[in-house]
Amino acid sequence: MTHDRTAVREILEKARAEGRTALTAPEGKRLCDAYGIATPGEGLATSAESAAALAAEIGFPVVLKVVSPDILHKTEAGGVVVGVSDAEEARAAYEKIIANARAYNAEAVIDGVQVQQMVGGGQEVIIGAVTDPTFGKVVAFGLGGVLVEVLRDVTFRLAPLSGDDARGMLDDIRAADVLDGVRGAEPVARDALADMIRRVGDLVGDFPEIAEVDLNPVFADARGATAADVRILLAEGPVEEPARLSREQILASMNRIFKPRAVAVIGASAETGKIGNSVMRNLINGGYRGHIYPINPKASEILGLPAYPSISAVPGEVDVAVFAIPAKFVPAALEEVGAKGVAGAIMIPSGFAETGNTEGQAEIVEIARRHGVRMLGPNIYGYYYTPENLCATFCTPYDVKGNVALTSQSGGIGMAILGFSRTSKMGVSAIVGVGNKADVDEDDLLTFFEQDDNTACIAMHLEDLKDGRGFFEVARRVVRKKPVIVLKAGRTAMGARAASSHTGALAGDDKVYDDILRQAGVVRAPGLNDMLEYARALPMLPTPKGENVVIITAAGGSGVLLSDACVDNGLTLMDIPPDLDQAFRAYIPPFGAAGNPIDITGGEPPATYENTIRLGMTDPRIDALILGYWHTIVTPPMVFAELAARVVAECRAAGHDKPVVASLAGDTEVEAACEYLFDRGIVAYPYTTEKPVAVLGAKYRWARASGSMGG
Amino acid sequence: MTHDRTAVREILEKARAEGRTALTAPEGKRLCDAYGIATPGEGLATSAESAAALAAEIGFPVVLKVVSPDILHKTEAGGVVVGVSDAEEARAAYEKIIANARAYNAEAVIDGVQVQQMVGGGQEVIIGAVTDPTFGKVVAFGLGGVLVEVLRDVTFRLAPLSGDDARGMLDDIRAADVLDGVRGAEPVARDALADMIRRVGDLVGDFPEIAEVDLNPVFADARGATAADVRILLAEGPVEEPARLSREQILASMNRIFKPRAVAVIGASAETGKIGNSVMRNLINGGYRGHIYPINPKASEILGLPAYPSISAVPGEVDVAVFAIPAKFVPAALEEVGAKGVAGAIMIPSGFAETGNTEGQAEIVEIARRHGVRMLGPNIYGYYYTPENLCATFCTPYDVKGNVALTSQSGGIGMAILGFSRTSKMGVSAIVGVGNKADVDEDDLLTFFEQDDNTACIAMHLEDLKDGRGFFEVARRVVRKKPVIVLKAGRTAMGARAASSHTGALAGDDKVYDDILRQAGVVRAPGLNDMLEYARALPMLPTPKGENVVIITAAGGSGVLLSDACVDNGLTLMDIPPDLDQAFRAYIPPFGAAGNPIDITGGEPPATYENTIRLGMTDPRIDALILGYWHTIVTPPMVFAELAARVVAECRAAGHDKPVVASLAGDTEVEAACEYLFDRGIVAYPYTTEKPVAVLGAKYRWARASGSMGG
Repeated sequence: MTHDRTAVREILEKARAEGRTALTAPEGKRLCDAYGIATPGEGLATSAESAAALAAEIGFPVVLKVVSPDILHKTEAGGVVVGVSDAEEARAAYEKIIANARAYNAEAVIDGVQVQQMVGGGQEVIIGAVTDPTFGKVVAFGLGGVLVEVLRDVTFRLAPLSGDDARGMLDDIRAADVLDGVRGAEPVARDALADMIRRVGDLVGDFPEIAEVDLNPVFADARGATAADVRILLAEGPVEEPARLSREQILASMNRIFKPRAVAVIGASAETGKIGNSVMRNLINGGYRGHIYPINPKASEILGLPAYPSISAVPGEVDVAVFAIPAKFVPAALEEVGAKGVAGAIMIPSGFAETGNTEGQAEIVEIARRHGVRMLGPNIYGYYYTPENLCATFCTPYDVKGNVALTSQSGGIGMAILGFSRTSKMGVSAIVGVGNKADVDEDDLLTFFEQDDNTACIAMHLEDLKDGRGFFEVARRVVRKKPVIVLKAGRTAMGARAASSHTGALAGDDKVYDDILRQAGVVRAPGLNDMLEYARALPMLPTPKGENVVIITAAGGSGVLLSDACVDNGLTLMDIPPDLDQAFRAYIPPFGAAGNPIDITGGEPPATYENTIRLGMTDPRIDALILGYWHTIVTPPMVFAELAARVVAECRAAGHDKPVVASLAGDTEVEAACEYLFDRGIVAYPYTTEKPVAVLGAKYRWARASGSMGG
Repeated sequence: MTHDRTAVREILEKARAEGRTALTAPEGKRLCDAYGIATPGEGLATSAESAAALAAEIGFPVVLKVVSPDILHKTEAGGVVVGVSDAEEARAAYEKIIANARAYNAEAVIDGVQVQQMVGGGQEVIIGAVTDPTFGKVVAFGLGGVLVEVLRDVTFRLAPLSGDDARGMLDDIRAADVLDGVRGAEPVARDALADMIRRVGDLVGDFPEIAEVDLNPVFADARGATAADVRILLAEGPVEEPARLSREQILASMNRIFKPRAVAVIGASAETGKIGNSVMRNLINGGYRGHIYPINPKASEILGLPAYPSISAVPGEVDVAVFAIPAKFVPAALEEVGAKGVAGAIMIPSGFAETGNTEGQAEIVEIARRHGVRMLGPNIYGYYYTPENLCATFCTPYDVKGNVALTSQSGGIGMAILGFSRTSKMGVSAIVGVGNKADVDEDDLLTFFEQDDNTACIAMHLEDLKDGRGFFEVARRVVRKKPVIVLKAGRTAMGARAASSHTGALAGDDKVYDDILRQAGVVRAPGLNDMLEYARALPMLPTPKGENVVIITAAGGSGVLLSDACVDNGLTLMDIPPDLDQAFRAYIPPFGAAGNPIDITGGEPPATYENTIRLGMTDPRIDALILGYWHTIVTPPMVFAELAARVVAECRAAGHDKPVVASLAGDTEVEAACEYLFDRGIVAYPYTTEKPVAVLGAKYRWARASGSMGG
């Protein structure tokens, strides 16, 4: 796409020079022309006679609209006449509009009256762009009229966007079928719509000073799309992108922070109950093998380690300083930490922005920046990195090593992560509190975990993003390699943002987060427990090679509920080919049901489970298995668990690898059976048909987004 | 409302006598007239001249439509001309329609051309009725056009319906705001629309032979509503309501089945591993105190009890016979059971309809009916009724007495109920398998549990309803007294039903079940685990007196997630009045946040929790509390649990009763704390912010439906 940037630049500069934050309709049209966005034929009339002449040239019917920088709501001002069908009417409409406009606002500068080709018919849609406080330039698409206004059936993407992103938007609204033509209407030209969406994305991407764009309505039919009304608003002040560190800069610090050779504890204490004591104990008891330097001016030794009056007095290099002192002592200590060349300050203390002390927080950010120290927090529990046996926290140590990295913006959620991890024996590489996120945020952590061989999956609890675009860019890259699970809290608190355009009003809720996280390929967890379960299960499950999911169940009742859950989670129940159906039938009783779910019926011996699971694992057309176990005396829970684990392991060893999840219905012995299965790579839950399928669904969401399916 | 039933009867009889299953447009209009459903002014023209005269009388513009019993799709036949604006056009339209109709179907009988007032403008809606295979006559309401066709934004109610039901339908569509006027449109006359919905409900309620009604479109504006097009289809064969037993008849049997003085086990066995042995053991070990009669022709004693060769040989009366013999022996044994005057046959054996043996099932149903024996099953695990220590099942005994009754259509789900109950120590009054539901179904069980003082809450897993209307009527009554929780499985399997009308096509999915279960006041659980958690928690929670929910949390992060969950579950976060806000502030740190959630901040001592919870319990303006605990060394989990349980108990003792749920974020000790709280009437969960709020939401759904709020 070639765009006439110079023409746009000129118009914007003129408007901004004049102190305007809204473009006139003719200016808007010229911007559209420069970016190849189709608008109706039109011209500016400055007399009743020229209105009539212009209308004749464009072709009737036309619509006449007042052009005035001082009149934003043209209809309200009586400044619009539609359906003008001959020269006589055009003259009359011109006079009427001028008279109405004067009556509405006697002070208004009136540039003239726009005469415009009357468009309509086809499908009415809205295409717009808005400046989101988190993500910056965001493009919106929805159907016009009631659908978008009442049902908020609209979808968002970060601008600029790819052709795939733009075409994806057309499918992403609930009423997408309308575009294919309903009630005898012809399908709209999807390419033309997607093209217009991209051009709007390019426009706001190229010119950050454009705050909002409203093409509303756009009329689309089989031949193309025309933006019947264009409204463009400009930002008031200067527009700046947030500063971002390079990947190399981030990694230089993060590698020292997560793999430190030496850790200092500022405010280390020998007194039980003090945070500085807990941190020391956790570092020592956690098994950290680097140097630990307790810093305390009043002690010569703490927990058997030599103490130093200040970090400056420490003989060797220090990578990380954990702060365990009150907020008021932080700035001075941080200056020393900076002077020492420490890479990371782990700022446990509270009493900063979260209590209203924003100045205090700004002060320590300034100190850290000045010295090139990266700061985690303040107001955090600390962090864990198990490959280094590092428990730099006042909570209890955690030692189940694994490949899930978890981060949380809230200390309470961090504690829930710890408790859940311990009780479910979830293998963890890192647990990190980000707290007030005064410096280090999710972008930095993602950048580290991306290249960290100890991490295969990242789960993040967050309430906001400091730099949504920065997050998007890193996340989209990381997702190609590892699942990124996000629990975005505060889904419902964003409704109050003021907005001056139609698109702006639509963007004021969680939908923007939702759409853009999805655009990035992030797996959004609907709740805390889901985030934890996804984190635990996703790294265990192999990536499916295709969409064919098969349910093998002994309980018909579970089969129905598992099928419901598949639909809820966007999974496709495989249409079983006749030969495979016959192969399954060979193993199940005559009154069992092949098809999908495959109902092997209750009361069957272990061999029936074993044969059908083996067939499911080895047939290459099946991409994922959901097992429904039913507790009977013929095949007790542990017998099932042992056989399922063995068959799956054998098949995996023979090269037949695919995700397997299981729902176990039975008496309490099924709990131990689930643990046994989980330990052996089969995601299994008791008393629920929803959870195993939800986890498989999350794996599929990631597999699709990462492009790793079919490989 | 007075309806002219005689007029309708005549029209329907004529049509059925002529073998027609569709009424003509004039017939449809006459039905509408008889039931006070407004339609446009119209008449039948049989010549071009009379068409012009009629049109002049009705007032232009008019629309002309062919009238022929042989032409159902009038537009397709070229049989419709709209926007006819004078007499000349009317004459031309008449000629054109007749010519087109002849060309379309030369054989068609043409009664003439309908001349109709042209309506339009206002809001287009659809009102219809359909005969649902489960529920019978069901009324539908939706917005016309794209909304209903693409988004299926439609709602259903059982017919006939009350004024509240009809008005509720207007609010129940997603695009309900459209009726209040959007984009400058005036609000529609809601009363007129609700009235038309009721009249349609009355019509199909009074005349079961009407299979489907389509009023589409109905034009509604501020003045009223007019059905512009009426389509009425008739049932082909005779229409019958299913036979229903009276409440007294049901209870006479059910009371004997659940509180039997004597139980016979047909096929009792001394051999371990046999079903007839398991049933005997469970009856004896479960502690059942009535007579147990083992029936086995080959034994004189089983497990220390005298055995009988047949039930006829048993000396005393028998209330229940548990069948533990193969299907082929059932009919003969059932004849004897019937002759003995047994109230209930617990039909454990499989091998009936579920394996395709529908004749076998019909045979035993016939035997049972003939003898007045109520039959549970076949193909079930049996049933438990803990107040009588009755474990009439081949599963393991269950002895945690409580007030929840659970039923399941599937054996696997029954086993999951048992395991979950045992592990969560859920107090249960009954667990009942209904299996093939050849006789006893949910209606019978609801009728028993309704009047059973040992049952305070009923949870049912079901895949279908034999008699949806029967279920609706019982459930709606029971819900006034006790919560009825339903897990309806197979939400997605109903799409394939054929339908010949617009409304019929819309009714072909789970929406009908969903709407009508809600109309009955049933709390529908989205999944198996939800059903189990609701069942466990609902009877524990006091009924809230109003909608004011308050969150008290130590973790800001939990507060945000708990708020999200409140919105997801339709709960209202109370707008805290200034005096109450001040009262809370007195207990929390200055940087804590009152408002709602009330963020008491982390690291607070037990007193802060205690004071704020006490205030929340005692202030009468607060109706329900959600607690968010954050594990710290200052207030460890068991300290919190003890204080929360104590404060709530003290307040309850002082007459301040309201539901309290809690989310505990912390290390593994929070699990024991949750158990402690659950045992003391506070619904508490670890590692989740969603579950406690979902359970409270379920309690609210019941409280609203039962009309017990505010009392």
